[in-house]
Amino acid sequence: MKCTRCKQKAVVALPSHNAGFCPSCYLEYFKRQVEKAIKAQNMFSFEDKILVAISGGKDSLALTLQLKELGYNVSGLHIDLNIPESSAEVRKTVEDFCTLQSIPLYVLEMKKEGLSIPEVKKRLSRPICSACGQIKRYHFNLFAKEKGFTVLATGHNLDDEVARLFANTLRWDIDYLSDQGPVLKEEQGFVKKVKPLYRLTEFETANYAFLKGINYSYKPCPFSKGASFTFYKKLIASLEQEQPGRKLNFYETFLKQGQKPFKLAASRKNSPLNACSRCGYPTSGEICGVCRIKELLAC
Amino acid sequence: MKCTRCKQKAVVALPSHNAGFCPSCYLEYFKRQVEKAIKAQNMFSFEDKILVAISGGKDSLALTLQLKELGYNVSGLHIDLNIPESSAEVRKTVEDFCTLQSIPLYVLEMKKEGLSIPEVKKRLSRPICSACGQIKRYHFNLFAKEKGFTVLATGHNLDDEVARLFANTLRWDIDYLSDQGPVLKEEQGFVKKVKPLYRLTEFETANYAFLKGINYSYKPCPFSKGASFTFYKKLIASLEQEQPGRKLNFYETFLKQGQKPFKLAASRKNSPLNACSRCGYPTSGEICGVCRIKELLAC
Repeated sequence: MKCTRCKQKAVVALPSHNAGFCPSCYLEYFKRQVEKAIKAQNMFSFEDKILVAISGGKDSLALTLQLKELGYNVSGLHIDLNIPESSAEVRKTVEDFCTLQSIPLYVLEMKKEGLSIPEVKKRLSRPICSACGQIKRYHFNLFAKEKGFTVLATGHNLDDEVARLFANTLRWDIDYLSDQGPVLKEEQGFVKKVKPLYRLTEFETANYAFLKGINYSYKPCPFSKGASFTFYKKLIASLEQEQPGRKLNFYETFLKQGQKPFKLAASRKNSPLNACSRCGYPTSGEICGVCRIKELLAC
Repeated sequence: MKCTRCKQKAVVALPSHNAGFCPSCYLEYFKRQVEKAIKAQNMFSFEDKILVAISGGKDSLALTLQLKELGYNVSGLHIDLNIPESSAEVRKTVEDFCTLQSIPLYVLEMKKEGLSIPEVKKRLSRPICSACGQIKRYHFNLFAKEKGFTVLATGHNLDDEVARLFANTLRWDIDYLSDQGPVLKEEQGFVKKVKPLYRLTEFETANYAFLKGINYSYKPCPFSKGASFTFYKKLIASLEQEQPGRKLNFYETFLKQGQKPFKLAASRKNSPLNACSRCGYPTSGEICGVCRIKELLAC
């Protein structure tokens, strides 16, 4: 197979785009997809102070590097969850990457916040993954707000987004469907959130990371059952194999026309949020979810 | 496994309902699902004159028999498509069934209408399945109207409905999503259409037909590529296996809450139809689709 752009030998085939690329043209393709996402969804400009949530996996590292190479003003925030089997190693990967790439990095240690994840897991009756996600979102948002970042960028890729859309659609959850998208605008105490990799699949990000020689963490979280969305991703992969391009088309058509009816019908849009009576974080109740977790741990 | 109702030996397992049944309790279960569908969707009453579209497959024959056994006023309409490899045999199956069950049967021969399907296939550039479906819907509707039937019932099952919903959702087709459902009300020259088997899967209808000793036609149409919806049905089957009950839940939640936003957003609802200038059939253009096919054949 020859490269679609330069006719050299291709090393990556992308049936979804009816294309194949040599290494350097692949990197050009990847960059253009990110640029297209940023522009089409009006994500941010060169004036923005962008905070990237860096977990240490391929997606967040690829995103950080691509944004930096495009000339954006990026800093990273890594959250150290204090999980014995993985956190120290993952944190080192992130620190090494940011040192190598000269990207300012902040690290928040959950242990210091009284939210060591193994401790939370022990005390909580609900699934740890949802609590851990809540804790991370809370700190990413709070940190961005406090330090004056205008945008929080996460490494969610097309597969993540499509699996979430699929799950929301299976339940016909009007509120979640009305909210989902590559941009959540700044409102009611939340910083603007963006997903610049939403046009790129997991395979495409992995391939970018490989070609860029990024040393990323493969270590799965020992607490994750791997169940969340994994089955949907498999189903969607067979659909994509049968109908190349369907995945991106399903998501983009949702954004273009499918979501509007849900936005009009959503009940959530009109409910104003309160400030948590403990920490001031926006919440629909009196006390925010993270303060409730802290309360539980203090008992 | 024991029968969920009577504790005798079960012959059918239904993980979606977390149940298993012996033959007679299965037939009771099947009947109740049909009754529930009719009642929940306000399909028809014992005063209605019901025309069942009988193709000769298991679904249409099962539907006809169940409605008759429930005491409804049913007649059948079979359309003879004049396809050499199958039509004669299928027609005989339908005629034998209706004779045995003492159900009034009408047969419309497409050859007499100048619409022999092999002829249409030869002359038409678009896929024959869509034209054939259009021709059948036209004649079912016209016949029901002319003979004073108040309802047209078809044998579409849950798998058909979910595959269609899945396809419409993948394309986020607002108009199709706003229209889809087990009942299409009477309007603008169209008879009321209902799908009383929408709560039952293909497996469940096949099982009913087997237990009732119905002799149905297995013969696939030689023109059908079998492609339409087949792949989606396979995907949905794996989803159902992973999450028993998901199929019915996806469809019912759509009807209960997912569809409303599409109904509000649909553009189609306000467009009035014209009467076809040739035959009077309701159409959005000047000449209806079937008259256009006839015109093509007359050239």
